[in-house]
Amino acid sequence: MKSWRDNVRKVEPYTPGEQPKEEGVIKLNTNENPYPPSEKIKEAMSEIKNLRKYPDPAATKLVEAIASYHGFDKEEVFVGVGSDDVLAVAFMTFFNGKKPIFFPDITYSFYPVWAELFGIPYEKKAVNAAFEIQKEDYYAENGGVVFPNPNAPTGAFLSLDVVEDIIKHNQDVVVIVDEAYIDFGGDTAKELTRKYDNVLVVQTYSKSRSLAGLRIGYAIGNKELIKAMNDVKYSYNSYTMNEPSIVLGTAVLEDEEYFQETRKKIIETREWFQIEMRKIGFNFADSKANFIFATHERVPAKEIFEAAKKAKIYVRYFDQPRIDNYLRITIGTRKEMETLLDFLKEFTAQ
Amino acid sequence: MKSWRDNVRKVEPYTPGEQPKEEGVIKLNTNENPYPPSEKIKEAMSEIKNLRKYPDPAATKLVEAIASYHGFDKEEVFVGVGSDDVLAVAFMTFFNGKKPIFFPDITYSFYPVWAELFGIPYEKKAVNAAFEIQKEDYYAENGGVVFPNPNAPTGAFLSLDVVEDIIKHNQDVVVIVDEAYIDFGGDTAKELTRKYDNVLVVQTYSKSRSLAGLRIGYAIGNKELIKAMNDVKYSYNSYTMNEPSIVLGTAVLEDEEYFQETRKKIIETREWFQIEMRKIGFNFADSKANFIFATHERVPAKEIFEAAKKAKIYVRYFDQPRIDNYLRITIGTRKEMETLLDFLKEFTAQ
Repeated sequence: MKSWRDNVRKVEPYTPGEQPKEEGVIKLNTNENPYPPSEKIKEAMSEIKNLRKYPDPAATKLVEAIASYHGFDKEEVFVGVGSDDVLAVAFMTFFNGKKPIFFPDITYSFYPVWAELFGIPYEKKAVNAAFEIQKEDYYAENGGVVFPNPNAPTGAFLSLDVVEDIIKHNQDVVVIVDEAYIDFGGDTAKELTRKYDNVLVVQTYSKSRSLAGLRIGYAIGNKELIKAMNDVKYSYNSYTMNEPSIVLGTAVLEDEEYFQETRKKIIETREWFQIEMRKIGFNFADSKANFIFATHERVPAKEIFEAAKKAKIYVRYFDQPRIDNYLRITIGTRKEMETLLDFLKEFTAQ
Repeated sequence: MKSWRDNVRKVEPYTPGEQPKEEGVIKLNTNENPYPPSEKIKEAMSEIKNLRKYPDPAATKLVEAIASYHGFDKEEVFVGVGSDDVLAVAFMTFFNGKKPIFFPDITYSFYPVWAELFGIPYEKKAVNAAFEIQKEDYYAENGGVVFPNPNAPTGAFLSLDVVEDIIKHNQDVVVIVDEAYIDFGGDTAKELTRKYDNVLVVQTYSKSRSLAGLRIGYAIGNKELIKAMNDVKYSYNSYTMNEPSIVLGTAVLEDEEYFQETRKKIIETREWFQIEMRKIGFNFADSKANFIFATHERVPAKEIFEAAKKAKIYVRYFDQPRIDNYLRITIGTRKEMETLLDFLKEFTAQ
């Protein structure tokens, strides 16, 4: 019998990191910032008004603030509902060729999802045993390149000259550098967008600016790239950035001091935490993100993950080939990391 | 020469209704509510906190509030970033057959856009000279049906028994009833979702709740439909509803009195305005929306549109076949409509 069910899209539902509702949990599983956002946010709340009207579809105030912060023109900045939205629009806009796009085999899990959603052919390029991207893998002809730097969930990062090398070898396609975690010590490729007209750098408010709850991501690129993205975006959904995002997202950029202070605290905590973790038998590459991706020399990651959860400490475990003995641990406050460390010391000593 | 430009998606950019930035404008061009949202919004601002964390991807609080308001279970409600987002996800989820989906030829301009974006075949069914949907047009085999009720931009509405008749003839595909304007006097089909498992009713906060700036839309349907939409949504973008939307969108539903009061005011203004407009030579079908779609017996719509704009009164004009002699005029406050009426009296008398 014919049924409407026949026409329903079949998907593999994504499982986001758990957002536990119980109290007293130490939450190190979704790479959120342990520090609250700038106080400017509270002050700016009173500026959220006129909600009865549609927001400015171009989110001009926010775009101008981001552009000015980074030293670009407003025509060089695109904003979206989190970097997921920005990346999805970029995929839709730039990857319409017949050749496969390239990205690492271990990387952000949404790349293959968007490629399939938009019918984009793709090839995964294997990172090496240390989870490092091999630049030569990206020299072959392709329909586009996308990689995070630092990579997720591995934390492995590329120096800017390697990023530029990959760009140089791919000047006839768009290269997307997904910099969700760049503010924690890596070198941004944003200046390369001035030199190469095919480079898009994507960043987010969700990590370093402590504003995952607002959903703001953005891309920096040359005007032609940004215009193409805006054309695509307006063509199917004109009003995506709501008024609170525009107002609060603009205000927070004024507090550079607080941004630098919290950023620095996280980096310091990470450096200390890495030393301590190595002492108790964890192995991992140095991270330039707000997380580390670690495996223990003896105790299986899955066991640690489950035991930690029972102890109300949430870290992230991916039950996937090659990485199923690793834990992705967000860098929280020093105190949170001390609690985790105490737990891990005891648990791995058994 | 090969260029990344070869792979850029070609689109026809959508032109949203103008959002004039100058002061003192009477804005009757984007069907916004002339009254501010409920005061509950201001009170709820202080509840927006914890922005550093990702929002609940299921927006549970908001979903529960909407479900409870309408007398449904939370599994029967889907929320999105405005009804545009809800409709796009519904298209993506339910219209994956080979047969064309059906919608009116004069209707919401995003239907063909989404169909093309997702590769969905479609057929437009011509409304009659009075812009009325002909139910028999929807009896043929198809891959799905979608129509707004009241229709946009015409304001023509279908009685509930006609809506049910269309549903009855299409029980093996999903039928989407787009009710963006239903709160201004039409009969909602939401109860039909209990009787027919293939019906999705879409509503929005943007018009009757005076919250276009928040971007909240939702769908009501049986649990299986809603689950399918959530599966698709989570599969490519898990966190779309930001924390301010969840908090404020929940709070506003508590103020039923204000909702009924403003709704009633708009309906009363519309009824009075329709009488006055007919007196000065405008023709249009009775509206059950917060706008009328009118043509003048003598003066071309485009001329009126342009002159009104010069007089700082913005209405909407669509330069498209069949409707290029019509104006879509949002119902504002009584005072705004009086100003417009004075202008129109003078302009059309010349």
